[in-house]
Order: sequence, then C-alpha cells, then structure tokens
Amino acid sequence: MKIGVVGCGMVGSTAAFAMVMRGVGREIVLVDYSAERAAAEADDIFHAVPFAHPMQVSAGTYNDLEGCRVVVIAAGVGQKPGETRLQLLERNAAVFASIVPQILKAAPTAILLVATNPVDVMTHITAKIATREKADPARVIGSGTTLDTARFRTLLGSAVGVDPQHVHAYVIGEHGDSEVLSWSTVTIAGVSLEEFCKLRKVTLNDEARANIDHRVRRAAYHIIQGKGATYYGIGSALSRIVDVILHDQRAILTVCSATPDVQGIKDITLSLPRLVGGDGVLATAPQSLSLLEQQQLRASAEVLEAAIHSICN
Amino acid sequence: MKIGVVGCGMVGSTAAFAMVMRGVGREIVLVDYSAERAAAEADDIFHAVPFAHPMQVSAGTYNDLEGCRVVVIAAGVGQKPGETRLQLLERNAAVFASIVPQILKAAPTAILLVATNPVDVMTHITAKIATREKADPARVIGSGTTLDTARFRTLLGSAVGVDPQHVHAYVIGEHGDSEVLSWSTVTIAGVSLEEFCKLRKVTLNDEARANIDHRVRRAAYHIIQGKGATYYGIGSALSRIVDVILHDQRAILTVCSATPDVQGIKDITLSLPRLVGGDGVLATAPQSLSLLEQQQLRASAEVLEAAIHSICN
Amino acid sequence: MKIGVVGCGMVGSTAAFAMVMRGVGREIVLVDYSAERAAAEADDIFHAVPFAHPMQVSAGTYNDLEGCRVVVIAAGVGQKPGETRLQLLERNAAVFASIVPQILKAAPTAILLVATNPVDVMTHITAKIATREKADPARVIGSGTTLDTARFRTLLGSAVGVDPQHVHAYVIGEHGDSEVLSWSTVTIAGVSLEEFCKLRKVTLNDEARANIDHRVRRAAYHIIQGKGATYYGIGSALSRIVDVILHDQRAILTVCSATPDVQGIKDITLSLPRLVGGDGVLATAPQSLSLLEQQQLRASAEVLEAAIHSICN
Amino acid sequence: MKIGVVGCGMVGSTAAFAMVMRGVGREIVLVDYSAERAAAEADDIFHAVPFAHPMQVSAGTYNDLEGCRVVVIAAGVGQKPGETRLQLLERNAAVFASIVPQILKAAPTAILLVATNPVDVMTHITAKIATREKADPARVIGSGTTLDTARFRTLLGSAVGVDPQHVHAYVIGEHGDSEVLSWSTVTIAGVSLEEFCKLRKVTLNDEARANIDHRVRRAAYHIIQGKGATYYGIGSALSRIVDVILHDQRAILTVCSATPDVQGIKDITLSLPRLVGGDGVLATAPQSLSLLEQQQLRASAEVLEAAIHSICN
Repeated sequence: MKIGVVGCGMVGSTAAFAMVMRGVGREIVLVDYSAERAAAEADDIFHAVPFAHPMQVSAGTYNDLEGCRVVVIAAGVGQKPGETRLQLLERNAAVFASIVPQILKAAPTAILLVATNPVDVMTHITAKIATREKADPARVIGSGTTLDTARFRTLLGSAVGVDPQHVHAYVIGEHGDSEVLSWSTVTIAGVSLEEFCKLRKVTLNDEARANIDHRVRRAAYHIIQGKGATYYGIGSALSRIVDVILHDQRAILTVCSATPDVQGIKDITLSLPRLVGGDGVLATAPQSLSLLEQQQLRASAEVLEAAIHSICN
Repeated sequence: MKIGVVGCGMVGSTAAFAMVMRGVGREIVLVDYSAERAAAEADDIFHAVPFAHPMQVSAGTYNDLEGCRVVVIAAGVGQKPGETRLQLLERNAAVFASIVPQILKAAPTAILLVATNPVDVMTHITAKIATREKADPARVIGSGTTLDTARFRTLLGSAVGVDPQHVHAYVIGEHGDSEVLSWSTVTIAGVSLEEFCKLRKVTLNDEARANIDHRVRRAAYHIIQGKGATYYGIGSALSRIVDVILHDQRAILTVCSATPDVQGIKDITLSLPRLVGGDGVLATAPQSLSLLEQQQLRASAEVLEAAIHSICN
Repeated sequence: MKIGVVGCGMVGSTAAFAMVMRGVGREIVLVDYSAERAAAEADDIFHAVPFAHPMQVSAGTYNDLEGCRVVVIAAGVGQKPGETRLQLLERNAAVFASIVPQILKAAPTAILLVATNPVDVMTHITAKIATREKADPARVIGSGTTLDTARFRTLLGSAVGVDPQHVHAYVIGEHGDSEVLSWSTVTIAGVSLEEFCKLRKVTLNDEARANIDHRVRRAAYHIIQGKGATYYGIGSALSRIVDVILHDQRAILTVCSATPDVQGIKDITLSLPRLVGGDGVLATAPQSLSLLEQQQLRASAEVLEAAIHSICN
Repeated sequence: MKIGVVGCGMVGSTAAFAMVMRGVGREIVLVDYSAERAAAEADDIFHAVPFAHPMQVSAGTYNDLEGCRVVVIAAGVGQKPGETRLQLLERNAAVFASIVPQILKAAPTAILLVATNPVDVMTHITAKIATREKADPARVIGSGTTLDTARFRTLLGSAVGVDPQHVHAYVIGEHGDSEVLSWSTVTIAGVSLEEFCKLRKVTLNDEARANIDHRVRRAAYHIIQGKGATYYGIGSALSRIVDVILHDQRAILTVCSATPDVQGIKDITLSLPRLVGGDGVLATAPQSLSLLEQQQLRASAEVLEAAIHSICN
C-alpha cells in the first residue's frame, strides 16, 4: 500500500494531500529534484493526517520508491517566456528521460501513472522509455480524460437532474482541445440520453449541448485564467485512479495508454474507456460512435500522432 | 435527517444498525407493537454508535415519527403452520391498514419505504392506504429488486472481472420468482455485454447465464434454508435507499412503486429502473427489452396483478 | 487483510456484517460447526457488499483460516434448561478445547480475539490452550469491557454535554456484574470530571452516578430481557478491535488478556486499559485508583479467579 | 449545512478542498475580493466532487453567505518588502474592519472561524468588530493551536508508539513562538506520560523533549522555508473544526477565543482546551499546569496583550 509521487509541484502535492484526506494507501513517498521542497511538502501534508486517515508521508530519493505499487509522475518544467509548445515538450521529454529509468530501477513492477501535460504525449514517451529499460510498457498509464469525463457527467447530471455517478458518458481522445464527448453513447437508467430527457421532460438542444461541450473542453482554460493553474480537480482524480490500482478494483476509467489502432491511426496514446486494475489497463472498449464522433476521434488521434512524431523523431 | 423504522424484526433492526454503521442520517426512531422489543433493539443498536458514526437511536411511538423524512416499514406477521400465502397476505394487509394511517398522521410528508414481503403487493397496498388518507401515494416506494439488481451486478462482475459498480444491469418486475434479469440491456464500459465478453475473452454461454439467473432468483431461498431468514443484504440495501432519499441524491434504483402501465397491465406495482430523490420516485425508465424479456415482464406483472386482486378485492 | 470468524451465531455474524459496513479488512472467512449455517450467513453478508465496501466474504473450514491476521472466536453453546452456569462453562471449555487447536494449526500467528461469554474465562482458557499448542499466549485477547467502556463514555458524555470520544474513562475488571467504573481517573479536556462538571455547571451527584453505573453494568440484562440476546453493540466493538489489529493502530482499548498480577491476584485474565496493535496487547496500564476502586477491582479479580479455578482444575 | 469561506488564498481554498474530500457539509460558498479568483477556485474544487462526496461549491458575494452556519475567514494581505509586522497587522485589521460587518450582515448567526495570522490577534479583532456590530462575540473563534496540538500528539505518539488519537496532550497560549506545550498534564491510557514511558520502556529525556518542542514550535518555519507557505495542515484542521461545529459534535479543541482572564492577563484571546459545538465555544478548561508552564503561559499571554494593544489602541 505504498505510493510514490515524483514531482512536488501543485499537482503532485495536491494528489498526495487528496490521498491522505481520502485514506488511499498507507504510505506516501514524495520525490522532487529539490529535496527541500519535497521535505516541506511532505511535512505540510503529514500535518493533515491527524484530521484524516492514519498514513505515513515522507520525502525521499528515487531509491525510497522501492516497494511502491503505484508511482504518480507529476514532474515537469514550466513554460519559459517566448518558448514554443514544442520546445517545452522537448525539455519535459528530457526530464522524463532522466527520471523514468530511476523510478523503474527502484520500483520495476510499479504502475506508472503520468499526470504531466500534455499527458497523452508524456505517457507515450514514458511507455517508450519503459520498453527501452526492459520494463513492461503496459504498466504505464496517464490520467488522460478521467477528469474531463467526470466534468461531462457532472454537467449532464445537472442538466437532467441525475447524480453524476448514474450518468454513463465518456470523454475520449486527447486530453485537450481535440477531445471528443461521446454524446451518442450516453445512457442513463438503461436508456439513451434522448429517451431519458423525454422521461424527465428536459430539453437538451444543440445550444445546451454546445454549452456543456464548451464547459468541459475549456474548463482548464477558465481556471488557469483565474488562478494560474489547475490542481484540485486533477489531484482528486489521481487519488481515485491510485485507489483503483491499489485495490485492484477493476473500474472503468478513461485513462490514456498506448493503443495499437484508433480509427486507423497506429500505435497511439489517448483515452478510451478502459478496465483498470492492479496491473494497470486490462482491457480497452472501443465505442460504437456516430460517424461525426468517429471523425472527431480520428482527428484527435492525428493531433496526438503529430505531436508524438515531432518529439520522438 | 430523522429516520423512522416501523417493525423491529430482524429486517428493520438490521436496517437501523446498517444506517449507524454507514453514518446515514442523524437520528433513528424505532417503533414496534412490542415497546419492549423496540427499546431493546434501540439500546443494542445505540451501543454500536461509539464505534461508528455519531447518531441518536431511540424507541418511540408513532407520534415520535414526527419530523421523519423517511419511514422504513418492515412490520408484518410471520407465516403460521398450515396458513396459505394468501391468508398470510391478508393478515399483513390488516396490520398495514392499522399502522400506515398512524405513520401518515405523525409524518404526513415522509417517504414511506416498504420492506415487508411480498414487497410489491405490500407497497401497492400502502399506496392505496395513503390515497385513502389523502396523502400522496407517489411518496410510497418499496425496496423491490434493489438487492436482486445488486446480486446480478456482483455475479456478472465476477464473471467478467469488473467491479460491480461499473456493470450496468437491472433486475425488474416482481421481487420474487417471476423477476426478470434484463440481459439484453446490459452495458459495461459503454459496450454491450457480448462485446465486453469478447474484449475480455470471457465466454458467458447459456449455462453460465442460467447459473447466474439461478443464483440471483434463488438467493433468498438458499439463505432462508441455511439460517431461517435474510436480513443483512436487505438491511444494507434499505440503508442505501434511505441515504439516497435523505440527500436527494437522484440515483437510479430498481425500487418498486405504483406504475400506470407495464406491458399492458394497468395500475401495477413492480420494479423498474427509477430515478429516486428526496421526493421519492421522480421518473421511471421503461427498458428496450428483447421480445422474450417483454413476455417475462408481462408474466411477472400478471403474477402481481393476480396477487393484488386477491387481496384488494 | 484476511479475517476469520469462528462461530456464526448472532455475535459472530453481526461482527462480520459490521466489518463489511465499515470497510474493515478485505476478506472474511466464516467457519461454523454447521457448514450450511456458515454458508448462509456468508451469502447474506456478502449481499451487503455492493452497498458498502468491496470485500470478499465466504464460508470455509478451519483450513481456510490460513493467512488470517485475526480470528474472532464467537463459538459456544447455549444454556440448557436446568443447566448451571458452571456446567455451561464446562461445555464451552470443551468446545474451545476442540476448535482452538484447529484454528492455531491453520493460522499459527493470527491474533485470536475471543468474544464468547464469560469472555474473561474463555480468553483465559484460550491462552492456556495456545500455550499447550506451543503458540504464543500473548496473541490471545478478549473483547473484555470494550463495550462497557464505550457505554460509560456515552452516558458520561450525555450527562456533561461532551462527545464520548473526548471523555477519557474506563470500565475495568470482569466483563460482568463485578466490573469497575473507574470514576476517580476520569478526565475531560485535561481536567478531572469534578472540575469539568464545575466548568459546565453540571451536577453529577451520587444518584446520577449510581444511575450511570446501573445503566452500564446492567445494559446487557435489559437488552436480553427485551430481545433475547445482544449482538449489535458487541459486533460493532469487535469490528473496531479487528480494525486496530489489522492496521497496527496502537489504540488504547479495555480488552482482556492474561495479566501476571492484579491487586495481588496472580495470573488472572480481565480488562485494563491496554495498548493494542498488530501483535495484540503491547502494554497494560495499571490505573491509580481510589481505595474503594482498588477493593472493587480486587473483588472482581477474585470472582474471575474462582471461576477460572472451578473450570481449569 | 452551508459553509462560507472568505479569502481564497491557499489556506481558504485548501480548507474548502479538504471539506469536499472529507464530506464536510453540503454546500460551500467562496468569497474573495477578486471575484475571478473565487470563481476559478470554486470551479477547480468543484471538479474534485465526482471523486469524493456530493457537494455544491460555488463562488459568490457576501450576500451569498446567507444561511451559512460557519464562515471561515482566511482573508488577508501579504507582507510587503520592508514592511514591519505591525504595519502588516494594521493593514490586515483594516481588511477585517471592512469584511467582517459584511459577513455578519449576511450571516448574523454564523460561527466565524478565523484562520488569518497572527490568528489570536485577528480573532480578537474580529470579536471586537462583532460586538460593535451588535453580534455575539462568543460566536467568533480562531483556529488557534489546533494544528500545533495535533503535531504535538503525533510526535509524542511516534515517540512512545501510540496512536495520536490516544495521546491526550495540548499546546496552549499563542499560536506562535511563545506557545506552551503542556507536558505536565499529558496522559495516555489513564496514566501520566512518565508512567506510560516506564510501561513501554521508552526514555523521553530532556533532549528528546526539546526536540519535540522544536519540531512543534518551528514546524511552520521549516515548511515556509521549503515551499513558501503552509496550507495542507491548516486546511485539514479547519475542515475538522467546521465539521465539529456543523454537527454540534461537542469536541475538545484548542481553538482560540476571547477569555476573561489567563494567568492574570485580562480580556485576552489565545488557545486553551475548549469544548466546541454548534454554538462555538461552550466551555474553557484551565489546566493544572506546572509552575514553569504557568509562567510560560503568562508570558505568552503578555506577548499577545502587547500585540493587541499595539493594534487596538
């Protein structure tokens, strides 16, 4: 029940704090290139323990990740003024090239859960490094659209007056601008969204759907504009994914992981509904999408393919 | 956050105990025709509080139900040797004719949650009494097939290696021998059961399905044979339904309530996936069943119609 | 995280149900001399899982206790008409002589948690059997006055208007008529009960104290009179003790275990505040009692000494 | 079950996030002088809801605090370069003079829970403003040494091998450099710390005690040095205090509130073990301190008296 968190910026630290508040795991080790920062975060988070769940929280080195069942990777550098997105990506790829082998050396059988953005590309890169290091790339997953799916369900649930846990809807593809809300496959209470709206006498016209789409797709932008970064939502989502892995819970989550073929695009990493357990992704469920959604998903896969090629070639 | 439990046999008491262990509500009042029994149960359950959640638990009279948002009705007499099922039903109907008006007098806006078997018929009777007493029959629901649905999901989940919360399947119709497992509408991860089995390389042939059907439909029989009665499963299910109502959680549950038309049978009480909140049943979702399942559901409705007519005419 | 429950009467079954409702452990195995009863209880309890915490619940034989960290022993026969208390005790001792070695064979390092009454004597007997079987008698504990202490705190808390968790008070000695409420050592908010009552302008005179004493000491009698047995309170207490052991939580509990000397009585088993962790009792804290309480505790120890001698010689 | 948070810096926001993760309350309203910041924080925190507990989280104005049972005040300006501590205090006092009347207008019966540092002085100021506004100053409390007490218990618990919840120890006086660890009143398992150490064969010599004292008293400094601010520990502590108030839980907490006399210092605000419920502080328990601790507490009260006089005169 030991969890590692590599990278103690706001996302990594908030994820560790969320695990303490929810009682996920029994021991958390924080690793950061600044040992002082890791120690301070571990101390601050550990002070929350008496008001939450019994847990050990400490700072450590890569060696201290030994025995972790899951390691959350939230490391990464920030964008410099004038830097292009690609340059940023190259710098983060260099960071991962340095840290992933160290993590795998200490915890060769841990599930690696990538949270650094662009999460699909960073997860792809991590899986490639794992392969190179003779580790199992199937044990690498990324948070993907887990949070986007939760937002979609929450907004849909509000619109039709249903608890989000009972709204079966997914956001798939890239975690980013090209992501796809799979409206055509939504079910509630065993019936389609259209039928359920009729039962509830609720109208979800194009405008209402566009509004929900916008609030899912642009949520991060609005938050970043208002406070500079997002971390509570993603920290909470990471704590949930870690819980599923620790307890081999066999939940369906839209995490991203390497996939042989998505709408004709080969060897691509993006989010689809996946069965997740103690060994990572156990199965992936390709959806019966509408024609439009199929095109959107292919377009999303192409965006990621281009990004991956730009960095991996 | 006040809950009433009328009838302190094993089902009512276990439901109250389950609420304490899960932290559902803040106050529970137990009512029984034997005031001594109610007091003893309240004492025993209250002794569990220090190891669980802060809560008040006390015994009372019908007047003490004032202010309850939910009243669980688990009252009823047991079968006498030589007594037919219809005679038993008649005696229980007489019990309800006496207690339901007293409950409604003290707590006219409470949701009445019926647990006494045969639960569909007793819920039907309770709604009729509510109408007669000028109360809202829509505020009467029964536990129905809530537990059967949970069993179905658990067994299906085990068969395909998925957490039951991510298996979307329902048991509908009568809570009893004629109930219908709606295999044709099962979805997991946004795909049908057949597709999901293919993804997981699992075979669910007719024999395996028959085995699951048997274990859902006959579960109570096996338990009753071994220990004389069932109460842990149903007590836990009742605590969940109460939680949904108290927090207006808008969950989808297969509770039973009066329904204008099911497969051509009019004014019938049985279970279907229903949206449940603080005001009881807010919507009912008729399923797109296979032809066979439609026939089975009609047959189940006919069984209930006959039982209701036998007692209500 | 595997727990065994031997003896599937109301106490053992309710303890297992309480563990499911509270999420204590990940796997429970029920063993009973009636395999059919154990199977029925396991089924009924397992049906509660979908509404509570993910857990495995199954029936098994003694061999299936392998790997358990804790085994709750709630086995025992009931009193026959005309049977003396001593005769009953002899029959239960015979039951334990048969089952304890089988438990120890399958789970030699498990903590044995005895719940069968008279719990102090049965715990003493179990420790003797453990010694005979070359197992560690220090790994045998009994529920003792855990529940009585909780009742004392609840009643005191109500009297002075404080949450019971913040009332530091203990019931020690026998779990039974001779138990001792250690009024003289009670503290709340770092001050004595007398001082705290002054602060709160509450009077706790002799009559009020006698009333609390009566309601603690006689609680079980009242419940047994009203419903024939007690099981919710003790089931919940057992689930708490198991949780402390599983997580090596180092809590202070008034469990009973073999103690070299209590007020001059040698090698006696009764309850005192004890530090409990994953290895059972780690330390025992003899209290600074008033003279009267010392005499009461000695008297309680003598009652137990007589009972133990009557059965063990 | 509505909670307000005024001031959406890291402390206020983390407190709201902690409440979502722990399921404290049902609705949180965030207010900040920057409406954009409040909206962004509310959005980010609300995105955590699907992975935690059902709850409403929104941004609002002071008017939207109507109906709150508790309002956490975490507002305040940061230290400017070259600014003295007194100048900072004067500016924060000015902020409170503006916001507290607005909070009281919207939520006149809410408990005000102050978290802004120096928390004792700001709580004192808030109570004075409440008096001026004809509100009840007894409904104003501050987080005080709640977190310091938890740290003390955690470190003591580690030293003697006991769960912190079973270590009864308090940090009293100022939340700051002059705070007092009341070693002389510590009890565990009904005995003094010295006796318990003997039982456990643990030595807590002067050096070990000095080390614990240092780690409690200087914890915030170390964290601030490493990460610039502390917020996880205090956010979690605030969520606990709010929970106690919402459920009228009658817990003992070392919150600060106006006190008529502490060691001869009149009308002073600092922390002592206090009984806290739905109406705020219900009683305060003056400790039987050693002579040295009495002197330390008086010195701590004098520090606060000076600070209060500097700002209030």
